[in-house]
Amino acid sequence: MPLPRPSSSCPRTSDLHQHLGDLLQTEKGADVVFEVGTQTFKAHRCVLAARSPVFSAELFCQMKESDAAAGGGIRIDDMEAHVFKALLTFVYTDSLPENLMSEDEQGVMCQHLLVAADRYNLERLKLICEHRLSKCIEASTLSTILALAEQHHCHGLKKACFNFLSSPVNLTAVLATDAFEYLNTTCPSVIKELLAKLGTR
Amino acid sequence: MPLPRPSSSCPRTSDLHQHLGDLLQTEKGADVVFEVGTQTFKAHRCVLAARSPVFSAELFCQMKESDAAAGGGIRIDDMEAHVFKALLTFVYTDSLPENLMSEDEQGVMCQHLLVAADRYNLERLKLICEHRLSKCIEASTLSTILALAEQHHCHGLKKACFNFLSSPVNLTAVLATDAFEYLNTTCPSVIKELLAKLGTR
Repeated sequence: MPLPRPSSSCPRTSDLHQHLGDLLQTEKGADVVFEVGTQTFKAHRCVLAARSPVFSAELFCQMKESDAAAGGGIRIDDMEAHVFKALLTFVYTDSLPENLMSEDEQGVMCQHLLVAADRYNLERLKLICEHRLSKCIEASTLSTILALAEQHHCHGLKKACFNFLSSPVNLTAVLATDAFEYLNTTCPSVIKELLAKLGTR
Repeated sequence: MPLPRPSSSCPRTSDLHQHLGDLLQTEKGADVVFEVGTQTFKAHRCVLAARSPVFSAELFCQMKESDAAAGGGIRIDDMEAHVFKALLTFVYTDSLPENLMSEDEQGVMCQHLLVAADRYNLERLKLICEHRLSKCIEASTLSTILALAEQHHCHGLKKACFNFLSSPVNLTAVLATDAFEYLNTTCPSVIKELLAKLGTR
């Protein structure tokens, strides 16, 4: 007769992400409202504060009790509603829905999300966006992505851009794009850095 | 010159558990207080409700707004403070601290936590406790664990207990314990089930 042999595997995987995702959906106990564009989003101040030091300061230090009691929404400018929605989803579930957008739109969405992640100091979301954007580097996107990397201090992404430009064929293709002018105007220091790299190799 | 080769690994692992664990520690934005024994614990209603349908009902349906406004603590009876503390840790982090207790105490703690998990309908915590208790089954603990399994509908744990008792040596050892009398008194239906199993094999 066999001796008892309890399974050594861990019972089921963590469901914390799913539970918090449900909380965001149901809005149960929500105590803050954001107004982004024409849309409103209800959320929970303690969850936002736990995840982002910027939300923490805004919601628990700068926000007066009278503001909270008044129940007025917090206006978010310079961000599109679908970007803020994706940001909230990440805050609650630590992941981005894979079917959030078409493949073509993913690169643009990741650019917006990287800016949002930097604004709210969501370090892991920023790394995920850098990671995804590094896969989108091609001649037509290089200048925009490199400008973003420079403006938001994404060292890994900047390195990937410079690696791309280290190929003469890629460099020639990038120089022929209109976007390169944008890069030259917005981030002249990056152009100097690139010239120095090319000159000393 | 190598072409850019972005890493395909995911940037860092999820930090949601750690962030919520910090939230529990710092008590930032806590809006509910529990009184357990002589200790008090501050927590966040939305997190508790997201994780446990029982907390959800107690904190958002049964609790009157006036109760919340009054700021009075919620009294938890029939549970020791260190068990409630471990329960809260699990609710926020989806894990139990490994160094919570000595190895000897783990079995007893898991018994208490299983009862607490059943009370608050924390299915995954209940499974983890079942899993750990199934490793603690021996002649001296069998009766208590089997009684718990029966009272809290833990089918896997009950099966592990019956497996243990299917060995004549183990059965004889268990029958010689005082705890078997306790099992016989509290769960007579289990004794009948065991007799039926032994009689038909």
